[in-house]
Amino acid sequence: MAEKRFQAASRFLPILSWARDYNSTVLTNDLMAAAIVTIMLIPQSLAYAMLAGLPPIVGLYASILPLLAYALFGTSRTLAVGPVAVVSLMTAAAAGNIAAAGSAEYLGAAIALAVLSGGILLVMGLFRLGFLANLLSHPVISGFITASGIIIAASQLKHIMGIEGGGDNLLEIVTSLAANLGALHWPTLAIGASATAFLFWAKLGLKPLLMRFGLADRPADLIAKAGPVFAVLATTVAVAVFGLGDRGVATVGVIPSGLPPVAIPTLNPDLWSQLFVGALLISIIGFVESVSVAQTLAAKRRQRIDPDQELIGLGSANIASAVSGGYPVTGGFARSVVNFDAGAETPAAGAYTAIGIALATVFLTPLLFHLPIATLSATIIVAVLGLVDLRKPAELWRYSKSDFAAIIGTIALTLFAGIETGVIVGVALSLILHLWRSSRPHAAIVGRVPSTEHFRNIDRHDVITSPYILTVRIDESLSFLNARWLEEFVLEQVAANSEVRHVILMCSAVNAIDASGLEALEAINHRLADAGLALHLSEVKGPVTDRLEHSNLLSELTGRIFLSQNDAFERLISESEHGDAASIQSKDPWYARGLI
Amino acid sequence: MAEKRFQAASRFLPILSWARDYNSTVLTNDLMAAAIVTIMLIPQSLAYAMLAGLPPIVGLYASILPLLAYALFGTSRTLAVGPVAVVSLMTAAAAGNIAAAGSAEYLGAAIALAVLSGGILLVMGLFRLGFLANLLSHPVISGFITASGIIIAASQLKHIMGIEGGGDNLLEIVTSLAANLGALHWPTLAIGASATAFLFWAKLGLKPLLMRFGLADRPADLIAKAGPVFAVLATTVAVAVFGLGDRGVATVGVIPSGLPPVAIPTLNPDLWSQLFVGALLISIIGFVESVSVAQTLAAKRRQRIDPDQELIGLGSANIASAVSGGYPVTGGFARSVVNFDAGAETPAAGAYTAIGIALATVFLTPLLFHLPIATLSATIIVAVLGLVDLRKPAELWRYSKSDFAAIIGTIALTLFAGIETGVIVGVALSLILHLWRSSRPHAAIVGRVPSTEHFRNIDRHDVITSPYILTVRIDESLSFLNARWLEEFVLEQVAANSEVRHVILMCSAVNAIDASGLEALEAINHRLADAGLALHLSEVKGPVTDRLEHSNLLSELTGRIFLSQNDAFERLISESEHGDAASIQSKDPWYARGLI
Repeated sequence: MAEKRFQAASRFLPILSWARDYNSTVLTNDLMAAAIVTIMLIPQSLAYAMLAGLPPIVGLYASILPLLAYALFGTSRTLAVGPVAVVSLMTAAAAGNIAAAGSAEYLGAAIALAVLSGGILLVMGLFRLGFLANLLSHPVISGFITASGIIIAASQLKHIMGIEGGGDNLLEIVTSLAANLGALHWPTLAIGASATAFLFWAKLGLKPLLMRFGLADRPADLIAKAGPVFAVLATTVAVAVFGLGDRGVATVGVIPSGLPPVAIPTLNPDLWSQLFVGALLISIIGFVESVSVAQTLAAKRRQRIDPDQELIGLGSANIASAVSGGYPVTGGFARSVVNFDAGAETPAAGAYTAIGIALATVFLTPLLFHLPIATLSATIIVAVLGLVDLRKPAELWRYSKSDFAAIIGTIALTLFAGIETGVIVGVALSLILHLWRSSRPHAAIVGRVPSTEHFRNIDRHDVITSPYILTVRIDESLSFLNARWLEEFVLEQVAANSEVRHVILMCSAVNAIDASGLEALEAINHRLADAGLALHLSEVKGPVTDRLEHSNLLSELTGRIFLSQNDAFERLISESEHGDAASIQSKDPWYARGLI
Repeated sequence: MAEKRFQAASRFLPILSWARDYNSTVLTNDLMAAAIVTIMLIPQSLAYAMLAGLPPIVGLYASILPLLAYALFGTSRTLAVGPVAVVSLMTAAAAGNIAAAGSAEYLGAAIALAVLSGGILLVMGLFRLGFLANLLSHPVISGFITASGIIIAASQLKHIMGIEGGGDNLLEIVTSLAANLGALHWPTLAIGASATAFLFWAKLGLKPLLMRFGLADRPADLIAKAGPVFAVLATTVAVAVFGLGDRGVATVGVIPSGLPPVAIPTLNPDLWSQLFVGALLISIIGFVESVSVAQTLAAKRRQRIDPDQELIGLGSANIASAVSGGYPVTGGFARSVVNFDAGAETPAAGAYTAIGIALATVFLTPLLFHLPIATLSATIIVAVLGLVDLRKPAELWRYSKSDFAAIIGTIALTLFAGIETGVIVGVALSLILHLWRSSRPHAAIVGRVPSTEHFRNIDRHDVITSPYILTVRIDESLSFLNARWLEEFVLEQVAANSEVRHVILMCSAVNAIDASGLEALEAINHRLADAGLALHLSEVKGPVTDRLEHSNLLSELTGRIFLSQNDAFERLISESEHGDAASIQSKDPWYARGLI
């Protein structure tokens, strides 16, 4: 009994399920992973805050309380929550509609987005609406991420080149870069380009090199992943030593040290209604990204995550971000993989990381004064180009033209009409294609395979049929989407087979019949009766029969319900032969189709 | 060849298919039906125009050209197009947002709605988007029609009582009636109440009475249906003879006689964008109503209609209405049944009716001077209360709670939040419920029924299984909506069955696999491989296999593809017995579940 209560409680507070097995081995592993992740997270958090158009320190703020909140409520043992590239870009897009980047209103909008997004995720979690994330088909997600990666990389080029620039879509960004190219700042470009080159090399070439020097796989991988840390250190030192800041290289500059200010965000209905759509998209995209990462990692260790509880975990992380001056966060791919590879075993590792980042905001911020913005941009560019997958459209082209249309549509719209339009139209497109397909389900006229009890499609197999019996196998549940179609299909088939006296609907693949489907069946029964035909059902599933018993269909049905299709076929034929069914005129009511 | 061209042409111009068989018998039948329908249509058209907030004559205008256009392009032989109750109410709601009823702007908005609605229907027809009407589930349609009927009846009470009143929803209408009750106009009430009582009697009691007096079924029915004509004649004469118009009984008054003014509606993008949502709803609701009626009537004579061509027919009818000063029209239930019962055989009957109405607008309008408004309202009330179906919610409650929720939600919202909100929320509700169900499809773990080759759900049947083989039967096509679910379901089942070495996905009910479903299969294959398990597929349908051959799944699959599930089961068991699969440890790899 106590155990049962405990399980119920640990479903909503997953910490309960792992905290009681916590021991010193796990502690050591978690601490080790936390130390590594902390070091990686610092440059990444600064860079993504900048991408969101916010002061870099906000990235650190968003990496403290949210981690603690997720450690309490999240179900993944290794997911690392914090600022991520795509959500940062979406924050910039949504907040940019309210105010200019850098203003107090802009920061206020970013915080409001975190509140709203947290609220939306919590509400979805409470109502167990995790399934809404399914509305994003894989091609739409993939197209959106690829296009976002391209936009993000393009938006960072101005920092690498030390020029002005801006824009909400690729065209605007490229045009503004081209217009300002004359102002290229060579010292900045030197730092930016070499940092980018170094980071690409660290990503692709460093690990094999280290392994050639005898390092084991895991440490080599972790050192290679620490590339951004080396780049930050080296360029910061270079700027400080050579006084490049005075020669026009943009740096992070003075940032307030100390823990984030804890404050209740103000309630502002006007602002909230303006930001709602943006916050909704941030919530859904962030949730999908986070759940994909968490599921991938959980599967590797045969663990499970609960998507509905994940909504609660991410929702509370966002609320925690908002009350500590941060902006929307989610579970990030890069940082979670580092956490996993570094050996994190429980969400406690996330809590230790939070402590590490908190210490950094207290003690390290003065050291960031000389950190060049170009280095942060280089970090972003190298990270997001990993998200760009240009082979996917080609793969989809070969596999499915409609999925190809979805990915290309999403990429093009995201690149050229803005990220919110891209994802909204992508989802709408997927849904309309899905509804279109659902409204034209598969059905087949079937006959019996000789010397078996199997019934197969007459168009694909040599099967036995009777001219007086028409058997339609419906390969989908009956719902309002296909009810009209079913009526048309059956009546058309009957119209085309004038000798038919019995229509059997073979319902082996019908898992449910909603009220619209029921009305279609009633209409079919009624219209067949008008024409002197009987309607029979075969192989109706148990739950469907239970449901039909609460309707008038069974009492009004002109025919019968048969347990098996074979039973239906044999009985109707033998009754015809014995003349029980007056409407059957022939003595030789069946023939072998295609076998003659 | 010529015949083929003719068939192609007659698909887009259905008149070609019936005009060449036209003879004098058909002509007589059509003329007879047209004469009857014309007489019925005059009071109905006047009344519905009034319901739409327009001058009564507009109802006649909307009953001339639209009928000719539909006769040319529509596919139903007996559908009668013109003003109908629900569309008139929707027109009033949409135009009422733009201007006050009675103003020139209001009439302009009604005409613009006809243009827009015609355009939307034509575009939907050209792109063959008739399936979009499927988004309206039967409970939503039924709830919407019932609630509209109640609102319409309530809105007409003021005319019956001769008082002022108004409002967009039931609450407002009832409140305003109560507030003005003191001004009750007794002579108007006398006319309105007796007309209403007479019409109810004509509807329910007249036909049996006439039949008792020896009339045959059909003429008795037609005379009973002409009730409104008698009511109009009687009350008009009463008002004229007793000078009731001078005593405050509202009458139709002076209406311009002559044919409708033919004019090109002005292009007004601002007005059009304001009216777009209203026009879209009018188009869809009108289309659904019309197609339902047309299908019902066509089935009775074993004829077919083509929903996509119906869009063209109704679209051109609306454009025709707009250019002749009319408002949105559609195929109406009451008038079509009269047309059908009166013996109409081809759309030519509609054209003759149009001529009849045209003659009426030229010659009869002066006679309508004394026609009391209260009589028209009585006509409307008696007609629309036939649309109210209060037993439907009770039926749905017994059959399906989610469909019950949809109908009650639609009725309540339509009654109290306005008709546009009602239908939009109803559709959204149905779609979300559908997507929710689609994201949790049915699947079962199956085993073999002893001494057969059938595989059935292990929870419902006594079947043979092997502890090393897990067979999952998926009862739905794989799409982005259920891809995530499939991954979770299979991995959960594997986690719960630790001895399993082979997983078979039985795909007999999988009609399609989209890119998201494919990725889910790839992910399952990958994760099972990580855990040392092989993934097999069985009973994959032909079109699905063809598609999969364009993917990487087949080359990466750790297991095989089997034509039949029985084959898969037997081969995997026999390989296990012969030790081919090293991972199978037992010599006795199968047992009878539930048979021990």
